[in-house]
Amino acid sequence: MFKLYGFCVSNYYNMVKLALLEKGLPFEEVMFLPTQTPESLAISPRGKVPVLGVEQGYINETSVILEYIEQAQKGKPLLPNEPFERAQVLALAKEIELYIELPARACFPEAFFGMTVPEAIKEKSKAELLLGFASLARHGKFAPYVAGESLSIADLYFQYSVPLACGVAHKLFGIDLLAEMPKAKALLERLGENPNVQRVAAEREAAMPAFMAMIAAKK
Amino acid sequence: MFKLYGFCVSNYYNMVKLALLEKGLPFEEVMFLPTQTPESLAISPRGKVPVLGVEQGYINETSVILEYIEQAQKGKPLLPNEPFERAQVLALAKEIELYIELPARACFPEAFFGMTVPEAIKEKSKAELLLGFASLARHGKFAPYVAGESLSIADLYFQYSVPLACGVAHKLFGIDLLAEMPKAKALLERLGENPNVQRVAAEREAAMPAFMAMIAAKK
Repeated sequence: MFKLYGFCVSNYYNMVKLALLEKGLPFEEVMFLPTQTPESLAISPRGKVPVLGVEQGYINETSVILEYIEQAQKGKPLLPNEPFERAQVLALAKEIELYIELPARACFPEAFFGMTVPEAIKEKSKAELLLGFASLARHGKFAPYVAGESLSIADLYFQYSVPLACGVAHKLFGIDLLAEMPKAKALLERLGENPNVQRVAAEREAAMPAFMAMIAAKK
Repeated sequence: MFKLYGFCVSNYYNMVKLALLEKGLPFEEVMFLPTQTPESLAISPRGKVPVLGVEQGYINETSVILEYIEQAQKGKPLLPNEPFERAQVLALAKEIELYIELPARACFPEAFFGMTVPEAIKEKSKAELLLGFASLARHGKFAPYVAGESLSIADLYFQYSVPLACGVAHKLFGIDLLAEMPKAKALLERLGENPNVQRVAAEREAAMPAFMAMIAAKK
């Protein structure tokens, strides 16, 4: 059985968790916080979450874990078999990660944790987020899912990166990044009705107070 | 035949170019600069390079192109078939991209193009680069290649991201990021002897004056 290392508040962790739930694959959740201790680094080379524990060892990096699960295991497919279509899904997922998740993440400390992010970093993130959402509007199909008719890995990134990026843009820049993307808004609503998405969200909410207390203790 | 859109100075472009050369797959190079014009964005949703033109359309994002070439075509494999080993190679490649290429890239304007990067961004990049190289030292095998005995996709990222990151760290921070990684230095020397790496480097050098003139004209 897979072991999923991480914590329920991490959005990357929740991408893998939702994939496993959607595919109906059994897994055990192992509490693992992103730290730079020797013990953590023996499991995750950069001390990040999530990590997937499998019979042969550990697999790190969310995109790699998602493809591994897809290649090695059964269950509902979240990637097309046909190489060109598969590439379109993976490109959309990568675009969301590089051009939406990462610039938003640079602003998480100020948007969500009461810290301060330097103006230069916020300005860069704002410019990148505007271009990132324009790219998503251009490449995304939203028919109704990000890459087409069925739920795919691109939707996992969409579900767990886009709302956080919207939160950053709303709080720090007063912008609604989805203002001109009604189909993307509709997809978020549709995904919110998925029982597995609801389960992940409920477990995230339950874990949030302890997480925020930990952040406060570190300040 | 594949069409490779981009320009010879781009390190991401050269990752794909080296993959195609190493696999012995024929391809045509199409000059394509990263811009936000409607014509560019019709080919590359975020206006980035490289893009691979195939019979069915365009494929963007280097990591996705590299996997597509691997999955759809013949030639020397750059990824293992076995899922766990494959995941280790892809994780190393992703670590180099996220934790070495991206923080270094944020400093390219100052390190290479005579512009100024805000202190806050340089400080963040420096901290991330130190952690990124520590991660590479921990996870990389260098036996003699990054992920083991044979050349893989991880080496493409290594070859075209690590020296640039070292250049950034040397110029802006006075640090030798490979000081305690003799095997990584040896791998760079070994890769430098590869005829395809030499060809890519020669074509990069030939394209550099025009590229620098274009950068200067934009300032």
